[in-house]
Amino acid sequence: MTESTATPTIALGENQYGKAEVRLVRIDRDTERHRITDLSVTSQLRGEFTVAHTEGDNAPVVPTDTQKNTVFALARDGVGAPEAFALRLAEHFTSSFDWVTGGRWAVQQYTWDRIPSALTSHVTDGTHDHAFVRGGTETRTAVVQRDGDDVFVVAGLEDLAVLKSTGSEFHGFPKDRYTTLPETTDRILATSVTARWRYLGEVDYDAVFADVRRIMLETFADVHSLALQQTLYRMGERVLAEHGEIGEIRFSMPNLHHFLVDLEPFGLDNPGEVFYAADRPYGLIEAEVRRTDVAPEPRAWASVTGFC
Amino acid sequence: MTESTATPTIALGENQYGKAEVRLVRIDRDTERHRITDLSVTSQLRGEFTVAHTEGDNAPVVPTDTQKNTVFALARDGVGAPEAFALRLAEHFTSSFDWVTGGRWAVQQYTWDRIPSALTSHVTDGTHDHAFVRGGTETRTAVVQRDGDDVFVVAGLEDLAVLKSTGSEFHGFPKDRYTTLPETTDRILATSVTARWRYLGEVDYDAVFADVRRIMLETFADVHSLALQQTLYRMGERVLAEHGEIGEIRFSMPNLHHFLVDLEPFGLDNPGEVFYAADRPYGLIEAEVRRTDVAPEPRAWASVTGFC
Amino acid sequence: MTESTATPTIALGENQYGKAEVRLVRIDRDTERHRITDLSVTSQLRGEFTVAHTEGDNAPVVPTDTQKNTVFALARDGVGAPEAFALRLAEHFTSSFDWVTGGRWAVQQYTWDRIPSALTSHVTDGTHDHAFVRGGTETRTAVVQRDGDDVFVVAGLEDLAVLKSTGSEFHGFPKDRYTTLPETTDRILATSVTARWRYLGEVDYDAVFADVRRIMLETFADVHSLALQQTLYRMGERVLAEHGEIGEIRFSMPNLHHFLVDLEPFGLDNPGEVFYAADRPYGLIEAEVRRTDVAPEPRAWASVTGFC
Amino acid sequence: MTESTATPTIALGENQYGKAEVRLVRIDRDTERHRITDLSVTSQLRGEFTVAHTEGDNAPVVPTDTQKNTVFALARDGVGAPEAFALRLAEHFTSSFDWVTGGRWAVQQYTWDRIPSALTSHVTDGTHDHAFVRGGTETRTAVVQRDGDDVFVVAGLEDLAVLKSTGSEFHGFPKDRYTTLPETTDRILATSVTARWRYLGEVDYDAVFADVRRIMLETFADVHSLALQQTLYRMGERVLAEHGEIGEIRFSMPNLHHFLVDLEPFGLDNPGEVFYAADRPYGLIEAEVRRTDVAPEPRAWASVTGFC
Repeated sequence: MTESTATPTIALGENQYGKAEVRLVRIDRDTERHRITDLSVTSQLRGEFTVAHTEGDNAPVVPTDTQKNTVFALARDGVGAPEAFALRLAEHFTSSFDWVTGGRWAVQQYTWDRIPSALTSHVTDGTHDHAFVRGGTETRTAVVQRDGDDVFVVAGLEDLAVLKSTGSEFHGFPKDRYTTLPETTDRILATSVTARWRYLGEVDYDAVFADVRRIMLETFADVHSLALQQTLYRMGERVLAEHGEIGEIRFSMPNLHHFLVDLEPFGLDNPGEVFYAADRPYGLIEAEVRRTDVAPEPRAWASVTGFC
Repeated sequence: MTESTATPTIALGENQYGKAEVRLVRIDRDTERHRITDLSVTSQLRGEFTVAHTEGDNAPVVPTDTQKNTVFALARDGVGAPEAFALRLAEHFTSSFDWVTGGRWAVQQYTWDRIPSALTSHVTDGTHDHAFVRGGTETRTAVVQRDGDDVFVVAGLEDLAVLKSTGSEFHGFPKDRYTTLPETTDRILATSVTARWRYLGEVDYDAVFADVRRIMLETFADVHSLALQQTLYRMGERVLAEHGEIGEIRFSMPNLHHFLVDLEPFGLDNPGEVFYAADRPYGLIEAEVRRTDVAPEPRAWASVTGFC
Repeated sequence: MTESTATPTIALGENQYGKAEVRLVRIDRDTERHRITDLSVTSQLRGEFTVAHTEGDNAPVVPTDTQKNTVFALARDGVGAPEAFALRLAEHFTSSFDWVTGGRWAVQQYTWDRIPSALTSHVTDGTHDHAFVRGGTETRTAVVQRDGDDVFVVAGLEDLAVLKSTGSEFHGFPKDRYTTLPETTDRILATSVTARWRYLGEVDYDAVFADVRRIMLETFADVHSLALQQTLYRMGERVLAEHGEIGEIRFSMPNLHHFLVDLEPFGLDNPGEVFYAADRPYGLIEAEVRRTDVAPEPRAWASVTGFC
Repeated sequence: MTESTATPTIALGENQYGKAEVRLVRIDRDTERHRITDLSVTSQLRGEFTVAHTEGDNAPVVPTDTQKNTVFALARDGVGAPEAFALRLAEHFTSSFDWVTGGRWAVQQYTWDRIPSALTSHVTDGTHDHAFVRGGTETRTAVVQRDGDDVFVVAGLEDLAVLKSTGSEFHGFPKDRYTTLPETTDRILATSVTARWRYLGEVDYDAVFADVRRIMLETFADVHSLALQQTLYRMGERVLAEHGEIGEIRFSMPNLHHFLVDLEPFGLDNPGEVFYAADRPYGLIEAEVRRTDVAPEPRAWASVTGFC
């Protein structure tokens, strides 16, 4: 069964391939005060790969193993911001192989904080030079997509878990025969923010990331919320208002329900104090906040299989 | 901070919201031989929801709790194929609320087999009437998207793990300074198939699903593979060749590496017998196989946030 | 801070160390009809390792890397049943190093079924010679512990998910001020069986495993259950009754709740048909079924850290 | 098959049952500056439950649902430290039901930090009164076991991920025919600490927990490591030296390998800068550090099924 049985009307559509989740850890040790960069890097190439699919001819197939090696080799010169590293990978692959006309390079970055310890420190802030503790549950993300000479940079973060114990209402919604939810003027609002935003040009990636994160946290905290949709929109609105270099921002925010436990059967009241945190199902609010004067750029947000 | 600070040029883009992962189990018990349908259902509505985002006005926001209730209520009349159930949900929400013009309804279905036991059986195949054991690691999926009166049905499966212990080669690939991978004419080929395909019209969803699954397994087994890309393409090609009711099929197939262990340091040979199964990184091959005489339908494959 | 500051009254207690989750795949290819053995192997050594802890002196520390290499090297001669392979590892390490007086060797085995395909088959059952599909969600387990010349073999399985759609009641339980659960004479009973049993001597490990699994499934299906405790006990009782070579068996069985959905608010009845499958919390029933005429053997069940 | 077929020599062994992973969130809102306690609580009862197993007689079976309700009801009066809450549960169940002679109550606690925001703050530290962000990947744990009037309290933490980029060596280990690991005087040392320690009496649980955590981090950072065993032992030794109220401490510490990538094939050196972080296999070091003048107390560390 090695012969192709191709029907004329059947053909290869969009495709990409590469190496996923290369776990790269880079230690910058030019001074005794080390810096650590902890990444998971995915490289996927696009271009003219039809013969590999239809004939099993690997002439154009830059091995995924080579892509992995390239990630490690390019890290030798330093990594820097995840966006910058993904851009270097994009430039390398599209300039090295004629038939590679584009691709997608995605990076996840894990946070490490310095361990407080005065013993071995070359600075005066009381933190250790080369010992670290993992910080936070969230992950910073960067996705670079390239299509010919057009390059798109989307920064983001995943799983930033936040919770407000008050300052959240939900009422005024339509009722039908399947509605049983009571209205409330005081509830817990909890979510795990996944957000991604597109840069319109080159920026100081680390600085802007830190500031967007700050804005999102602060806005979540400060907005008196009438709906998770409203909180989401305000977060996006403020990010765009303060960062002209961002074209649009997209959010996926689960509504992680905390139900007030009914303690009446036990002869107890429950004035907003005892909650049950549910796993599933959960609400899921997803939206883009954009500039009306910036043209949409679907290629920045493309995923070949569109499975999600 | 409840006042909107909307800048004229900032606006809501694409959006959807709903309830995710409603864990519905339906028992059909009209006879003593029960049937079980085990689903995780996600309902997401699209339409005119701007005021919820910009003003916190929930007038159009059909609560996600109501969407959950509706899933359970509609299951009272039976569930049937996951595609059919998702279609009913789509019809319900778009016909019940003027401003709900579309949405996305996704279903995952888990497989249960009957336990072999002659004791309590009303049939003669030696299997139990109402006792089941979970079958297989894979999940069947269905995604219905609706945009006004246009309805799109995408069936699929996730995590169908398959492995060939021979009949797989990989050579003839380009070499550059970062290439260290040796060529091979005999390797283990292992993957975990995620596939989705779009129906061009109504079909017997259960029967076609079973046959597509059979074709994919058989093709994976029978194709002498020169590249995972080739195996993927043949799987898609044969599915389309045998099922005219399918417009296109998309695959995401990790190359789950099994490395031959070097036993030479221990004075042993290793003629293709002892392997190390690696977790990360892994190859990742993604492609669509399509009909050239069927127009693409991006709305069938849309995801609002495009995060993947 | 390299100097030990040991206080006389502080000392090393029980300890073990080794390599965890060595992912070994063995292909038996002596004929064209291949066999696959897919394992995750953990090797942990016990003995006299005090100086490593107190002085950082590695003279006795057989590297965990060497333990991993040994797993692969011993697999060159074939693997066989997971119990047998763990026994070979135990014998190797305790006989190779004087100060290694015992240890714990744990194996998880994943199931692969042959893909149905007539094309490349040297048998007449219609299944493929060298193409496999992952079978079942459950995992077979084996744990061998050795203490000097005493060897203990505990077989088992994890995550065998089973469900009965009727034939299960729960009533007659004590009520107090915190009881709100109604009694029921018909409910879904679902669990994911983890079971482990100790062999009193050498057996045909594969054959006994298959039969114990069969008994557990059949008993779960056939017992009309008044409590999950009762189902558990019957399963153990029958395993011991039919397998004199087993000394005791231990179960950990979550009660995976399936709650009948209240459809009354929607004007619908629900005669045992529509259920909500909850994730957490879940009931958890754990018990040992044993022979009164066999002495307990805690060393067979030891875990050094006792964390679970 | 409802009749028991009990053989005289088969009997129930150790057993426990209850409700696992009750997700309790408690908001203390006596002032505008809220406090949050986020727990997963597991309650398991031990005592005389034989008839439930052998006869399906639930007369002694306090429903797991009642145990869940009790968790929520007792939280109405406040939660406090996880150890204190588990002790209250233990006292409640053993004093309320004659036949409940003991049990195991385990709590996991998740950390929340206040979001920096000056807007709604009644203190001057610039943090928000009622908005929180999840802090750290680690989990605090508490396990209370009770056997009649004897009560045991074991505190701990899970998944405290730490890494040193230098200050770690590994050499001087024995070599055999399966050894290929080179010796090293400079490597990355990374682990994810799980630790549990037993209190000899009542303490300020929150204060001692914080201090033990500080000691573990500081010791990991400051010890120049010749073996992970040595680092582990020093951590335990210092905890015991500084906290006379702790009888023993147990650790399970994976050695999360970071392999220096060989860049020589690409004409590059790699002076300790580019690493590959491996998932599996991993080293696993487990040990107890104890006081020689304190009697061991196995009941504090008991797990009925001994599965781990």
